[in-house]
Amino acid sequence: MKNVLVAQSGGPSVAINATLAGVFERAATSADVGDVLGALYGIKGVINDEIINVSEKLSDPNMIKQLIHTPSSALGSCRLKLGTPGEDEETFKTIFETLRKRNIGWFIYIGGNDSMDTVQKLTNYAKEKNITDISIMGAPKTIDNDLCGMDHSPGFGSAAKYIYTTFSEIWCDCKVYDVPAVILVEVMGRHTGWLTASSALTSLQCEAPHLIYLPEVPFDDMQFIEDVHEKLKESPAVLIAVSEGIKYADGSFVGEFEQSGVMDVFGHKYLSGAARSLEALVRSKIGCKVRAIELSLMQRCAGHLASSNDLTEAKLLGVTALDRALHGISGEVSVVNRISNSPYRVTYGTLPVSEIANREKHIPREWINKRGNYVTQEMITYLTPLIEGDFGVKTHHGVPVYIELH
Amino acid sequence: MKNVLVAQSGGPSVAINATLAGVFERAATSADVGDVLGALYGIKGVINDEIINVSEKLSDPNMIKQLIHTPSSALGSCRLKLGTPGEDEETFKTIFETLRKRNIGWFIYIGGNDSMDTVQKLTNYAKEKNITDISIMGAPKTIDNDLCGMDHSPGFGSAAKYIYTTFSEIWCDCKVYDVPAVILVEVMGRHTGWLTASSALTSLQCEAPHLIYLPEVPFDDMQFIEDVHEKLKESPAVLIAVSEGIKYADGSFVGEFEQSGVMDVFGHKYLSGAARSLEALVRSKIGCKVRAIELSLMQRCAGHLASSNDLTEAKLLGVTALDRALHGISGEVSVVNRISNSPYRVTYGTLPVSEIANREKHIPREWINKRGNYVTQEMITYLTPLIEGDFGVKTHHGVPVYIELH
Repeated sequence: MKNVLVAQSGGPSVAINATLAGVFERAATSADVGDVLGALYGIKGVINDEIINVSEKLSDPNMIKQLIHTPSSALGSCRLKLGTPGEDEETFKTIFETLRKRNIGWFIYIGGNDSMDTVQKLTNYAKEKNITDISIMGAPKTIDNDLCGMDHSPGFGSAAKYIYTTFSEIWCDCKVYDVPAVILVEVMGRHTGWLTASSALTSLQCEAPHLIYLPEVPFDDMQFIEDVHEKLKESPAVLIAVSEGIKYADGSFVGEFEQSGVMDVFGHKYLSGAARSLEALVRSKIGCKVRAIELSLMQRCAGHLASSNDLTEAKLLGVTALDRALHGISGEVSVVNRISNSPYRVTYGTLPVSEIANREKHIPREWINKRGNYVTQEMITYLTPLIEGDFGVKTHHGVPVYIELH
Repeated sequence: MKNVLVAQSGGPSVAINATLAGVFERAATSADVGDVLGALYGIKGVINDEIINVSEKLSDPNMIKQLIHTPSSALGSCRLKLGTPGEDEETFKTIFETLRKRNIGWFIYIGGNDSMDTVQKLTNYAKEKNITDISIMGAPKTIDNDLCGMDHSPGFGSAAKYIYTTFSEIWCDCKVYDVPAVILVEVMGRHTGWLTASSALTSLQCEAPHLIYLPEVPFDDMQFIEDVHEKLKESPAVLIAVSEGIKYADGSFVGEFEQSGVMDVFGHKYLSGAARSLEALVRSKIGCKVRAIELSLMQRCAGHLASSNDLTEAKLLGVTALDRALHGISGEVSVVNRISNSPYRVTYGTLPVSEIANREKHIPREWINKRGNYVTQEMITYLTPLIEGDFGVKTHHGVPVYIELH
């Protein structure tokens, strides 16, 4: 009887622990599996043999539900990118020594595009060395929704729900005065605009946001100022969603100029960010009240606003990854795909990791309006089921209770 | 039969509409009151005779519950400070002309310290002019919790609950890596530290925040760096709450130097803020990973995290203000006071507006530890009941639904 090893990698999300819980649940119902072990801080924990026994930690069934709704990586995370086996033979040897020592039959790595690179390299190494008794599988996670080969990424729906809720509340806040005001909200997504686009869901409830700028369309300062002028004619307060990754036609990020030009008193560069840069532009060209807001870490860790659909799917992607591994598959990643929108239905499967690692899925151009300052109805239709449902988080004093595994 | 006029003033909060709902409910159960009218954009709406009929808008009883949990001011707001009647006789005349024209017997103004100045001045003017048939009353509101004469201010408890929840989620997020990191979270409160102090509630659940800096204690850069060094010995990630209003011993705000020294590409001053300034200091003096986060508008408009105790009390403060006005009282403000902590019990009453207008309540020094970098148990005991309870917000697609009155 062999053990399962699981690890989490990359940036936090609200759903990454649900996937861990899914791996645990599938293992618990298999006669072939001994314990579920967890490597701390991603692949670093395998390299350093920093391993905990997840089965012991989760022996109380109540803890599983609590783990599912606890945001971020309960096992810790890392951003380590392995070299190729040729460049870094020692590391690969060490990893497989740990797997042997811990009697691992199945290794599940939960993460985004970069983390799937690790799955790819470990798979290639195992093939080269003719290691056939350890299955290596990926389970997807990223709030950015930029993973290829699947309808959407677990973690994204909950982040989208946070963004929808927060934009509708910011709109309640910023529309109270009868003086012209521009509010710029910066949303994560360095390369793709999925998260920023999800602010369009707020339009289901109210007239905001008025403008949405995404990395998929080249940004133009003059057109932006024209857009804002136009919207200020219709509404005293104009709420704008901007991706942190918006770029000019020459490929430079908005705010990059300030970033390189301005120093603080210690001689450090000011990382002004897109929204702060546009705040200065609006102040200069329009002169009205203007405020930049960053949703910062909150958009990826707001467990209290988790989408129930998202957590359910994230768990089943953990189940699927281990299930296929138990059936002898290796070097694949679990994926979720949509069969229908209404009623919302999905299926689960796996794809070779090579179709997912180091690739990015961008928003189709036709889901963005012609002028590049808003999204189309297709985007709203796509997003709506992903944010659906309350998970029923356990609270104390009205505040969610989160658990720790180490 | 006369009408009630109500208006909302100052910065938004989650509870200010609950107070409006309280005024409406008390009016609806009185045989002496005709309609409840609402002035748009605070006292500006009275000056400009921009008035809506709230009784008509709220004719559907379901809308009242929805109004209670809708954040920010449904009637709009303003930050207008009236001159004295001597300086600005015309404005006062115009205000009382509107009150006469609209057949107002009772005017309830909901707001913070500055707004109570308006109540004070209107009361003085009415006395001078021997106007005895219009009662002018205040109802309190401010997330800052700095109103004198009452145990706490409505709106504060919900903001504190947002801060507690958000700090516990940021902690889940930022502790995942095994590398030293400092996370600085800037909380509102230019003059008092109540909101920042409420981050200490997170310690009920986990080991964060590690340090809390408040405007009530002079800030010292060197001591701060010592504190951070000390905490980094105990934990790889150190989470710090800083008030936007922290000041050096000479009275200058932290970040003020950068604010005056740094210009953006348009020649505007960079308003770096306290957390951004300390981010640069940590980067320079410690050199580890560091991130500044501002809770910005979100901390005062997160209706989905409203404290049920807060909304209930805010409503009853609206009821109380109108109730006393109906009993012939004028020039007073409704207040809430705590009788006991466990079980949590409060009483409602009124106080002369002169005891509240233009005054600020600071945190008692003995509720802050000796070194000035955390709060004591008294603060936690004081805060705990204020955040209690879920209000049961109406949702659609799992997201709260908010209403508009105009």
